[in-house]
Amino acid sequence: MSNAPIPPTLLTRNPDEGFGLAIRLSRFAVKLTQPDGDIRASLRDQYGRDPEMLILASQVVATHFATIAAANNYWKDQQP
Amino acid sequence: MSNAPIPPTLLTRNPDEGFGLAIRLSRFAVKLTQPDGDIRASLRDQYGRDPEMLILASQVVATHFATIAAANNYWKDQQP
Amino acid sequence: MSNAPIPPTLLTRNPDEGFGLAIRLSRFAVKLTQPDGDIRASLRDQYGRDPEMLILASQVVATHFATIAAANNYWKDQQP
Amino acid sequence: MSNAPIPPTLLTRNPDEGFGLAIRLSRFAVKLTQPDGDIRASLRDQYGRDPEMLILASQVVATHFATIAAANNYWKDQQP
Amino acid sequence: MSNAPIPPTLLTRNPDEGFGLAIRLSRFAVKLTQPDGDIRASLRDQYGRDPEMLILASQVVATHFATIAAANNYWKDQQP
Amino acid sequence: MSNAPIPPTLLTRNPDEGFGLAIRLSRFAVKLTQPDGDIRASLRDQYGRDPEMLILASQVVATHFATIAAANNYWKDQQP
Repeated sequence: MSNAPIPPTLLTRNPDEGFGLAIRLSRFAVKLTQPDGDIRASLRDQYGRDPEMLILASQVVATHFATIAAANNYWKDQQP
Repeated sequence: MSNAPIPPTLLTRNPDEGFGLAIRLSRFAVKLTQPDGDIRASLRDQYGRDPEMLILASQVVATHFATIAAANNYWKDQQP
Repeated sequence: MSNAPIPPTLLTRNPDEGFGLAIRLSRFAVKLTQPDGDIRASLRDQYGRDPEMLILASQVVATHFATIAAANNYWKDQQP
Repeated sequence: MSNAPIPPTLLTRNPDEGFGLAIRLSRFAVKLTQPDGDIRASLRDQYGRDPEMLILASQVVATHFATIAAANNYWKDQQP
Repeated sequence: MSNAPIPPTLLTRNPDEGFGLAIRLSRFAVKLTQPDGDIRASLRDQYGRDPEMLILASQVVATHFATIAAANNYWKDQQP
Repeated sequence: MSNAPIPPTLLTRNPDEGFGLAIRLSRFAVKLTQPDGDIRASLRDQYGRDPEMLILASQVVATHFATIAAANNYWKDQQP
């Protein structure tokens, strides 16, 4: 999963790519508040072992995923 | 309940399957942040006995369920 | 209030029944994470006396209630 | 502000009454989890002096107010 | 910023006024739970120096702002 | 990223600018509660090194981003 900047569109091909974008957006907010990559890596190491923080991080992803899913009209046109 | 990757569609047959998908999405975010399955199992054991974390985890599920319910137009066409 | 599984429809007759369903969905997520009923009962006893956890639990209910209210078009057709 | 049960409609005459209903819904969830009125009164006393809990309680109210505002089409027809 | 009661309409002239209203709604919920102005002032002093509480308070404002923005159709007709 | 006041419109040219606005709105709420710039700078230093607070701050940004994305109809007309 890349930490590349925000793409010019929220449209993705499927829910899986939408989920990946939700994670990128979650990380991007952290990056803007804490630009130092070394500090961020150390923080990530901390919260990767803390269940409460993992849950809270997962809440941020869920919020972004809701936005991205709406933007894609829930990928209804891409259904198999 | 499986930890399989995100399906190609958010459409499910009924609210119960939608709820199952909401739980999968919640766990998937954690998996992407903490890929080590052993650590995740140990964390799950911790938060399974901590009421506050269980409530917070349940908040993430509620957020994903809202998205999935909207995607399915609240299963109005599947009503009994 | 029952802990029965998720019903086949999110439609309820009025806001009060919708609220009851929101509580069931909140508990159902906890049940899927912690299947042991005895542990759950003990946890419920803990958070029933902890104001912060009660507030957090009430947040989950509010999130589910929002979904259910939308599913029922806010019960506008059932108004007295 | 009353603790009466949930009314048969989410429609209110104005934002102020909608806000009152949001508070009732917030308290109602707590009541269903902790039915003992004396314990609830003691918990309310605790969180009334704890800024973090007051903020979290206010988050629940905000979530219910969003639902009620949508139910009332944001009171656009009642504007002065 | 005033602590005046809730206005009869959620419509505001622009996003800035909408944001002000979101803050009023956030404070109003706290006021209804803790009516004592002196206690509230002391609590505000506490959370004004606590970064976590400031962030949580800012989450409540964001939730109300979402409601108000929707009520105003995102001020699309007032764009410069 | 600027701390300038809220712009007269929520419309932005693309998701990236929308994200920047979401961050400005998040900071603006904090500024209104804690007007002292020196205290704010010190608090920002604290939470920039605290993973839990960074995650919570990122939740506020996600909530504002949802509002701004809806205001912009998810930038569907600006897609490349």
